[in-house]
Amino acid sequence: MAIIDKLIDKITLLKNPSVVGLDPQLSFVPEHILEEMYDVYGHTPKAVSEAIFRFNTEIIDAVYDIVPAVKPQIAMYEMFGVEGVNAYIKTIKYAKSKDMFVIADAKRNDIASTSAAYAQAFLGKTKIGNVEEEVFGADFLTISPYLGHDSVGPFIDECKLSDKGVFILAKTSNAGSGMLQDIISDGKPVYEIVGSYIEQWGAELRGKYGFSPIGAVVGATHKEQAARLREIMPHTFILVPGYGAQGGTAQDLAVCFNSDGLGAIVNSSRGIIAAYKGKCRSEEHAQAAREAVIQMRDDIAKHI
Amino acid sequence: MAIIDKLIDKITLLKNPSVVGLDPQLSFVPEHILEEMYDVYGHTPKAVSEAIFRFNTEIIDAVYDIVPAVKPQIAMYEMFGVEGVNAYIKTIKYAKSKDMFVIADAKRNDIASTSAAYAQAFLGKTKIGNVEEEVFGADFLTISPYLGHDSVGPFIDECKLSDKGVFILAKTSNAGSGMLQDIISDGKPVYEIVGSYIEQWGAELRGKYGFSPIGAVVGATHKEQAARLREIMPHTFILVPGYGAQGGTAQDLAVCFNSDGLGAIVNSSRGIIAAYKGKCRSEEHAQAAREAVIQMRDDIAKHI
Repeated sequence: MAIIDKLIDKITLLKNPSVVGLDPQLSFVPEHILEEMYDVYGHTPKAVSEAIFRFNTEIIDAVYDIVPAVKPQIAMYEMFGVEGVNAYIKTIKYAKSKDMFVIADAKRNDIASTSAAYAQAFLGKTKIGNVEEEVFGADFLTISPYLGHDSVGPFIDECKLSDKGVFILAKTSNAGSGMLQDIISDGKPVYEIVGSYIEQWGAELRGKYGFSPIGAVVGATHKEQAARLREIMPHTFILVPGYGAQGGTAQDLAVCFNSDGLGAIVNSSRGIIAAYKGKCRSEEHAQAAREAVIQMRDDIAKHI
Repeated sequence: MAIIDKLIDKITLLKNPSVVGLDPQLSFVPEHILEEMYDVYGHTPKAVSEAIFRFNTEIIDAVYDIVPAVKPQIAMYEMFGVEGVNAYIKTIKYAKSKDMFVIADAKRNDIASTSAAYAQAFLGKTKIGNVEEEVFGADFLTISPYLGHDSVGPFIDECKLSDKGVFILAKTSNAGSGMLQDIISDGKPVYEIVGSYIEQWGAELRGKYGFSPIGAVVGATHKEQAARLREIMPHTFILVPGYGAQGGTAQDLAVCFNSDGLGAIVNSSRGIIAAYKGKCRSEEHAQAAREAVIQMRDDIAKHI
């Protein structure tokens, strides 16, 4: 079964179109975990990376039965170099071991042969002599469209080859996204032009629910643009960032869903992983994350 | 002295505005190095990463006295996971130890807080408890503008803080770059709009030669567009990919330079690091790379 169908089945089973964003800014990692790792490894990248991984596993353990996917944002790991990337890969493997879908949020992009290397790294397999190895092993990867067709193509090829998916940036959630994405050409903004391409690129890969694994990123913070994108991309699954901390409400993002409640998956990062802050002891962070997931799920359900 | 001035001084000293692109596709890495590492480490990411690092150091040893900078493309390293990223960081450190400038080609981009994490990782320092650590330690980083002002801002802030630079994608060298970059709005293509922003973002950071460390990527394969960008970005240093293997000639890319011969730095990857292919024994790859650098330097000098 195609990966996008599997993701939709899981969303339907759990009645929850949410993603937990694992963007562990150091200030979100509970002090008691950090201190424990500092005691063992000193103030080193190894200590922080082990702390981040522990933090992630505790969150995953607390939510894997109620939420279908996690979205680790790689910048927060790359900051700690080799050890950080190791924590990133271990986090992906751990989430997969709990049957969660993993969206690697890395916004990669480059020209053709280099795009192919990124695609292999995150979604496919790397060949070494006579051995093939899954390196990152994510299910989905976020990518940027700025370089055009031939830069996106190798990612789509890898999706076909390895039954994986991508979410291509169309309209991002940040306030300044309009600088380039809202530029109007012949009456159409750039994000719509990109949206039309995404819909077209996924046409031959549609699964049994009518959606393709070539998805789009559409911020919850831009309601009218999101509605327009839903309209021109009827077969494109949407990853919606910007819920909660960034200001997007369930009412705003409801436009990303079809009338049957399918078509999108909504990310929240700090609203979940830092839910414990100012609310309970850091030892109870995972329980607070679980409660935040339930609250988010119910909030979205009320509006779609 | 500001980093862009130092780079220009080095270019002037060596009479060479070139960059060696360290994009070690596995097929470029000499068989004898790979075999040696496979013997020690088996068919593992460790073996390939050690082979890539050895390959890079041999190239750097052969060219550091005649070329000012290297540009390692991170996808070719990420393919090999943690070990690959380790080889990437070691390559940067090695090039720095030979007084070369390092342009990390990673095309990173994200919303504000996440952009700041990438900026710290590649250009700044990461704080861990009471320790500050340089993680990647590059001098320049390539970034994508698709997310707009507030996504580029944290990179520029890091450039100010740490005296580093960025090259922002304006018009890329690939054939399909026009899909988005050539979209016309009010008579202006997107790459020009982006170019104007880049010129403006760098305005307050100009050094003694009139250039800012907020540079632009402009492909050698699009001569007219490059000429136009040079015109509207008089204070913007240009990183020019696409020379050689991708089809850009010295005649084409001459438009990226000012009449005084300053204003751009030209990258060649496979044309240099794989120059030995079909030409000499793989043991002589570094000498072949040196000859290719000299040839490229002289070719460019003839046209600017």
